[in-house]
Amino acid sequence: MDMVPNKRILLRQFATGTPDETDMELSVGKVSLRVPPGSGAILVKNLYLSCDPYMRGRMREYYGSYIPPFVPGSVIEGFGVCKVVDSEDPYYKPGDLISGLTGWEEYSLIEQTKQWRKIQFEDIPLSYHLGLLGMPGFTAYAGFYEVCAPKKGESVFVSAASGAVGQLVGQLAKLHGCFVVGSAGTKQKVDLLKNKLGFDEAFNYKEEPNLDAALKRYFPLGIDIYFDNVGGVMLDAALLNMRLFGRIAVCGMVSQTSLPSSVGIHNLNMLIFKRIRMQGFLQSDYLHLFPEFTEKIIEYYKQGKIVYIEDMSEGIESAPSSFVGLFSGKNIGKQVIRVASE
Amino acid sequence: MDMVPNKRILLRQFATGTPDETDMELSVGKVSLRVPPGSGAILVKNLYLSCDPYMRGRMREYYGSYIPPFVPGSVIEGFGVCKVVDSEDPYYKPGDLISGLTGWEEYSLIEQTKQWRKIQFEDIPLSYHLGLLGMPGFTAYAGFYEVCAPKKGESVFVSAASGAVGQLVGQLAKLHGCFVVGSAGTKQKVDLLKNKLGFDEAFNYKEEPNLDAALKRYFPLGIDIYFDNVGGVMLDAALLNMRLFGRIAVCGMVSQTSLPSSVGIHNLNMLIFKRIRMQGFLQSDYLHLFPEFTEKIIEYYKQGKIVYIEDMSEGIESAPSSFVGLFSGKNIGKQVIRVASE
Repeated sequence: MDMVPNKRILLRQFATGTPDETDMELSVGKVSLRVPPGSGAILVKNLYLSCDPYMRGRMREYYGSYIPPFVPGSVIEGFGVCKVVDSEDPYYKPGDLISGLTGWEEYSLIEQTKQWRKIQFEDIPLSYHLGLLGMPGFTAYAGFYEVCAPKKGESVFVSAASGAVGQLVGQLAKLHGCFVVGSAGTKQKVDLLKNKLGFDEAFNYKEEPNLDAALKRYFPLGIDIYFDNVGGVMLDAALLNMRLFGRIAVCGMVSQTSLPSSVGIHNLNMLIFKRIRMQGFLQSDYLHLFPEFTEKIIEYYKQGKIVYIEDMSEGIESAPSSFVGLFSGKNIGKQVIRVASE
Repeated sequence: MDMVPNKRILLRQFATGTPDETDMELSVGKVSLRVPPGSGAILVKNLYLSCDPYMRGRMREYYGSYIPPFVPGSVIEGFGVCKVVDSEDPYYKPGDLISGLTGWEEYSLIEQTKQWRKIQFEDIPLSYHLGLLGMPGFTAYAGFYEVCAPKKGESVFVSAASGAVGQLVGQLAKLHGCFVVGSAGTKQKVDLLKNKLGFDEAFNYKEEPNLDAALKRYFPLGIDIYFDNVGGVMLDAALLNMRLFGRIAVCGMVSQTSLPSSVGIHNLNMLIFKRIRMQGFLQSDYLHLFPEFTEKIIEYYKQGKIVYIEDMSEGIESAPSSFVGLFSGKNIGKQVIRVASE
């Protein structure tokens, strides 16, 4: 029957406040490496798993979001890069490298194969399909070009700028001819932004007693585009510094995700004074652009115009602590878990 | 020298909190009814003056808005319908009826004549050029069609719905084939909305202990378009009830205008979950549409498809109390001051 042990990370309970490692638990199950005949499913070996802040939203019992909660007692779900072990779907063959929504476990049986993608660009690190070429990278791409509607010469502010999304937003903005400033939470990240990711300026928000004053220092003429990954007090300060007809792409509110009650935003009157467009978005609404995104980013990457920083942890056992680390800013760059060698 | 007495309303001091009549004062000056030769100016008799909530913003010492503060000790400025008494501008002749930004006084010397409009439609009440056919009406028109991007069959919520702007938004939305619900602050206004202005439903927000629940009652499937005239807790409740790809036109925040610190908005995460576009706007950014607006609204009005409710006070002396009344919702419909008969 080809049954093998399968280490898995289960959601133990819905999280309250900042997620804690104890909200998850390691369990060892068994899995058959054969797909039930005629099922149309595939069986994959998970090579890399992605830790993304949006997953915090699935750790609460709330059904009004774009994606349902995880089920306590069940395997956590997330994006992965995987190798096909067995397939009853004619499109996939054993050995294929593919990416899609998988389980936080060593092997997963995938019954819904439609949203998966085959990986065809093998001269790029496989794990990049979870970041640069995956959901976060595409979030940066769709958010920047489609939501921010950037013009050459505009001033762009990116929060959580060294994160999975922010680092690409900043680089795309530079390639577009914008002036780009990023905020992050450690000196090391600020250095990366300035010295490796090509931001014009960067600052450590934790060292700024007055975010409004900090933004005024970096943007004396104001901000045309704010790519918001954090919400909260940074959003409120950015609102005070927007220019006429500015745009705010609301990508995430990681500063608020774990609070029982969010920080109130007080400066929305600026939307009127400055005629600002503030827009929430999800990359999944722009999937028709995915092929052009892939092509363009791969070209930039091969030309050396874009770099991508990853934070790689080793082994499925490291998944809970890696995930929890996102919310204290422990990760530097895109957080990935290496589950297995190819 | 043709000097005549000129009753004027001065700003005595910047307002703190809700504007008070004592922030203004009546003064009697003198004015020459002759324009200085060669000045290019015009001298007008003010017939109707407009009380608009945005004017509260000019009663504080804040320079970051789209319009500078009033000057304490000087005449308050606002929209008016006026008759030309004397003119050194060849475009205007004595006797012309015109509308534009004038002073809260009986006669005004207008040096900047470019932003003024001649009134050509004399079978419509003159005062309507301050409301239905003026800045508030055009705000409704530009905001609804350009910012809200409405589609037939969508669900529209309008706050301050019987006000100068809201009453037209609701009627335009009905003409567009939308389902329209309005909120207002008295039973009388709610009755007007339902029985005279053609809203599908209306409610008195002061009688709703839970605005979220009220909106869920009227919009069980959610809101596609929220035309926000009030901000604050109503905005927060509306955010919870928006549908996917909803739009919020941020027209005004009259509930917040007078607060030393605004009420915090807590539900902006809905912008992401529901991919909402929230946009501040000013009618003055859409002036290229003014001719089509005038034509369309006059046609609707003459066809009896649109009505417009005004609250008229008598005499320049009534201006301060009329203005202050806006902030307690005393006015029913567009607040106008009749200064003189034509």
